[in-house]
Amino acid sequence: MHEITRDAVAPRTAAAPADVDWADARFDAEADVVVVGGGASGLPAALFARWLGNDVTLLEKAPRLGGTANKAAFWYWVPNNAPMRALGAEDAEEDFARYCARLSAPERYDPAHPTLGLDAWEFDAIRAIHASAAPAVELLAERDALPYRHCEAVPDYWSELPEDKAPTGRVLVPRDARESMSDGGLNGIRTMRAAAERDGVEIRLGHRVQRALRADGAVAGVEATTVEGADVRIRARKAVVFASGGFTHDAELRRNFLSAPVLGGCAAMTNEGDFVRIATSLGAQLRNMNYAWMCPVPLERAVAADPAMIGMFSVAGDSMLFVDKRGRRVVNEKLPYNELAQKFFEWDPLAGEYPFLVLIQVWDGRSQEHSASDEYGRLIVPPGADDAHVIRGETLDDLSVAIGERLARYAGATGGLRLSPDFGANLRASIARFNALAATGVDTDFGRGERAVQQLFNGEVKDEPGRRNPTMWPLADTGPYYAALVTGGTLDTKGGPKTTPDGAVLDDLDRPIPGLYGVGNCVASASRRAYWAGGATIGPMIAFAYRAANAAHREPVKGPRSAAPVA
Amino acid sequence: MHEITRDAVAPRTAAAPADVDWADARFDAEADVVVVGGGASGLPAALFARWLGNDVTLLEKAPRLGGTANKAAFWYWVPNNAPMRALGAEDAEEDFARYCARLSAPERYDPAHPTLGLDAWEFDAIRAIHASAAPAVELLAERDALPYRHCEAVPDYWSELPEDKAPTGRVLVPRDARESMSDGGLNGIRTMRAAAERDGVEIRLGHRVQRALRADGAVAGVEATTVEGADVRIRARKAVVFASGGFTHDAELRRNFLSAPVLGGCAAMTNEGDFVRIATSLGAQLRNMNYAWMCPVPLERAVAADPAMIGMFSVAGDSMLFVDKRGRRVVNEKLPYNELAQKFFEWDPLAGEYPFLVLIQVWDGRSQEHSASDEYGRLIVPPGADDAHVIRGETLDDLSVAIGERLARYAGATGGLRLSPDFGANLRASIARFNALAATGVDTDFGRGERAVQQLFNGEVKDEPGRRNPTMWPLADTGPYYAALVTGGTLDTKGGPKTTPDGAVLDDLDRPIPGLYGVGNCVASASRRAYWAGGATIGPMIAFAYRAANAAHREPVKGPRSAAPVA
Repeated sequence: MHEITRDAVAPRTAAAPADVDWADARFDAEADVVVVGGGASGLPAALFARWLGNDVTLLEKAPRLGGTANKAAFWYWVPNNAPMRALGAEDAEEDFARYCARLSAPERYDPAHPTLGLDAWEFDAIRAIHASAAPAVELLAERDALPYRHCEAVPDYWSELPEDKAPTGRVLVPRDARESMSDGGLNGIRTMRAAAERDGVEIRLGHRVQRALRADGAVAGVEATTVEGADVRIRARKAVVFASGGFTHDAELRRNFLSAPVLGGCAAMTNEGDFVRIATSLGAQLRNMNYAWMCPVPLERAVAADPAMIGMFSVAGDSMLFVDKRGRRVVNEKLPYNELAQKFFEWDPLAGEYPFLVLIQVWDGRSQEHSASDEYGRLIVPPGADDAHVIRGETLDDLSVAIGERLARYAGATGGLRLSPDFGANLRASIARFNALAATGVDTDFGRGERAVQQLFNGEVKDEPGRRNPTMWPLADTGPYYAALVTGGTLDTKGGPKTTPDGAVLDDLDRPIPGLYGVGNCVASASRRAYWAGGATIGPMIAFAYRAANAAHREPVKGPRSAAPVA
Repeated sequence: MHEITRDAVAPRTAAAPADVDWADARFDAEADVVVVGGGASGLPAALFARWLGNDVTLLEKAPRLGGTANKAAFWYWVPNNAPMRALGAEDAEEDFARYCARLSAPERYDPAHPTLGLDAWEFDAIRAIHASAAPAVELLAERDALPYRHCEAVPDYWSELPEDKAPTGRVLVPRDARESMSDGGLNGIRTMRAAAERDGVEIRLGHRVQRALRADGAVAGVEATTVEGADVRIRARKAVVFASGGFTHDAELRRNFLSAPVLGGCAAMTNEGDFVRIATSLGAQLRNMNYAWMCPVPLERAVAADPAMIGMFSVAGDSMLFVDKRGRRVVNEKLPYNELAQKFFEWDPLAGEYPFLVLIQVWDGRSQEHSASDEYGRLIVPPGADDAHVIRGETLDDLSVAIGERLARYAGATGGLRLSPDFGANLRASIARFNALAATGVDTDFGRGERAVQQLFNGEVKDEPGRRNPTMWPLADTGPYYAALVTGGTLDTKGGPKTTPDGAVLDDLDRPIPGLYGVGNCVASASRRAYWAGGATIGPMIAFAYRAANAAHREPVKGPRSAAPVA
């Protein structure tokens, strides 16, 4: 898979808006609706706007469409979807809202409160997902832009909570994705692109939007730079819809906003926080800048900012454990990825450090033989796959030495993190303890395998008839042994301008900025710290793309009704 | 002490700047330098600017000066200060920078890196503190605006780190503060106010600055609303210096930027994030919005947004422990306040909740008798003090019931947090364990009393000749027993616009916005997650006030050089 690198993107210039005077305004092109970004939010937004009869221009910074979705399985989480209803499943709005609110802000969740303890805009966003995700995905399917199949058995990530009244059945996936679904994103982008081309969306690749054009207080278009270095001004008669992704690849924004000091993430390399800058320059309020869709990632690829890095959605292996720099097991390795990723950022208030910033995945020959896979970011990879991250040792002592050497190479990127002298001894003790727990099938230390989501992402393991916990098995007494360095990262960030449930960007007094919309990871997500379920990224994106397209369609034309002067 | 409430403050209007046309501009007043905020940053900034020969107007939102400093002990941390030098202590810039960098970003600290692993602006800010705090405080002392005394023995909060080459001696305090120093803030504000009045700073109270006035791309003044509801426009010939505090009392900003879901904080009630809005409307970049000066606070006052709430700088008592909702001891109670406050926000990835959002301080008659104090936010208060937060029980069983009832009252503010059924049994076991550790003087569970800073804030305890750990003593076998509910809060927040080391606010391409400066908690602090030492708030504030005043003094006059038309 060829990936986009920054080299293929025009450099950034100032984000402050350019004021347009209609008397002598000149544009290089115009459309009713301009969509910025051609990924999992932008393509649906462009399609929905086009299907309402608008001239639509879509500007993508990279030389190809898809953004982060190109690397995604593209599950999409759709409450009360048509296949659920056909199966007779209930998924009422109030139940759905309680489930989301309980997880998004557990410290404020109050089932008796009119907005369940959430801020009103968050509560309204959750209701909008329930109302619009299902009709939106049905429309995409009907028009053959995104045919899907239903994942009837896939559970929500917190399906055991009493608030989850529809614990399975909300997940859809592109129809032609392979059985493992890991290529869902490539499929979904392909079908949506084909529909956009078929139905007359004008797609311009290699256009980096730099700033908004503003006329009479409304957004009236954008200025972009092409990869060739040309500046182009594109008028939006009705509205501009940003769908340009989060700020994973702006290290300074990441360091200064996220609650955790992540080293990197696996969003498309073009996700550099453009809309944070452009929207704040227009007076937008930022929200939920502290949160991200979190995922463990291989340390070495994160440090290298490898464009092909995939988040570790699934930590494979049964005879496998994570240990810290002291060789101690400190976490349930099968936690859902968003939760597992938090562990790396626990603070030690006595030492003044993040002791778990790097953890070490350790496995044996059994897991190597039976659990290898190059899908879903797994680090136990089959022969022939890129295994530069794999550390080997015939004995645990050899392995410990090799881990120490590898980790030391990254001292400059980890605040000098190194193995402690007792690592080897503690690793042996940790494996002995793990093996004892695995033999019983009950992880009394960390609860591994206890919840449905942990088994969902267990991956392939050797068949062991009759065992009660498929996520655990004792490590072998003899080598070879394997290891890899892991840290916490983002899939992408969740923060950005605050919007209405229709994606209208709000100013500091909560008034919509006329003509300005945002959807997806470039705007604030009401999910806050929660990862409600698989596909809780893309399902809501499609819902908001649908709503924003409809609202943009209803916007008045800015400036002269007839064609503005075009250069 | 009379405190400011929101009722005494004008409501907020839009933050977008007003553009000024010099041809028909009218102002209600003008000065060379306008300072916004009259607390620990604004008063020094106004004085320094005045002493350089400028006409200075200081606008304070509240009906009185002082801001958060009115509640502070007003320690100020000044590297390489004159009394240190007189004593022959070394405090070199490179050592100071290493100590700060090691703590501010431990995950990136690299002693071999040119900026020690920090972003350049952060590194420059730290160097600026070293260069300017000492001359600034000497000037304030020479002009009798802030005479001080030296706290020679007070240690930094991480004095044991190898990077700390000057582990004691950096702290100064207002000269006439009482021996315990808890009234330092009232003293320091009083002396600075007297100097400002003496030297001709024009002070206007009850002025809420709503937005900037902008002319030719530069900030040329501000528009404010008075408590009486009048709108006034004040021209700043050279510059506006914001010193308006953080965003502790804007619940939505707090929720959406801080890394931890705090319920409240003890900043002045006027600290509502005004500069976040005003500066971003001018195109400023925000930085370090995720961090705050953290401190444990009494739950009930935080929920009530009590303007008189003081952070728990010192958790008093030796026969005292903290337990969680299950009755288990989970933390070192004598951690420095910024570190202790993090504990409340640990995430439980299996339960999907913050299990320690509320902890319970428990003490016995001994601590009540010997450790009571109403200073530094202590919860073991003497007879006659406000003790509404104190929960009592003659037996541990009685106490447990009373704690459960009290906690249940706050369920609507804590996500429904309640005591678990085994709380009483676990509390007994936790006390037994604590008592066994206290008898030996060594807290092998949490390291209580091991570091200098923990003993610094231990408070008064009963004299026990010969004991090795003055922070611990077994709780009595018989009542009465006492308890209070504690959560994590802020002293104030640390995020805001990114500035140069001279306080010039930067736009999204790191260019200064002409005429716009910020100092103190209203702008981004390079301390990030660290609380370097006591007074690490106010010492740097004074340094940056000094630098910003000098830079503002050098700014060119905006608009007509002669007096602008004044209404």
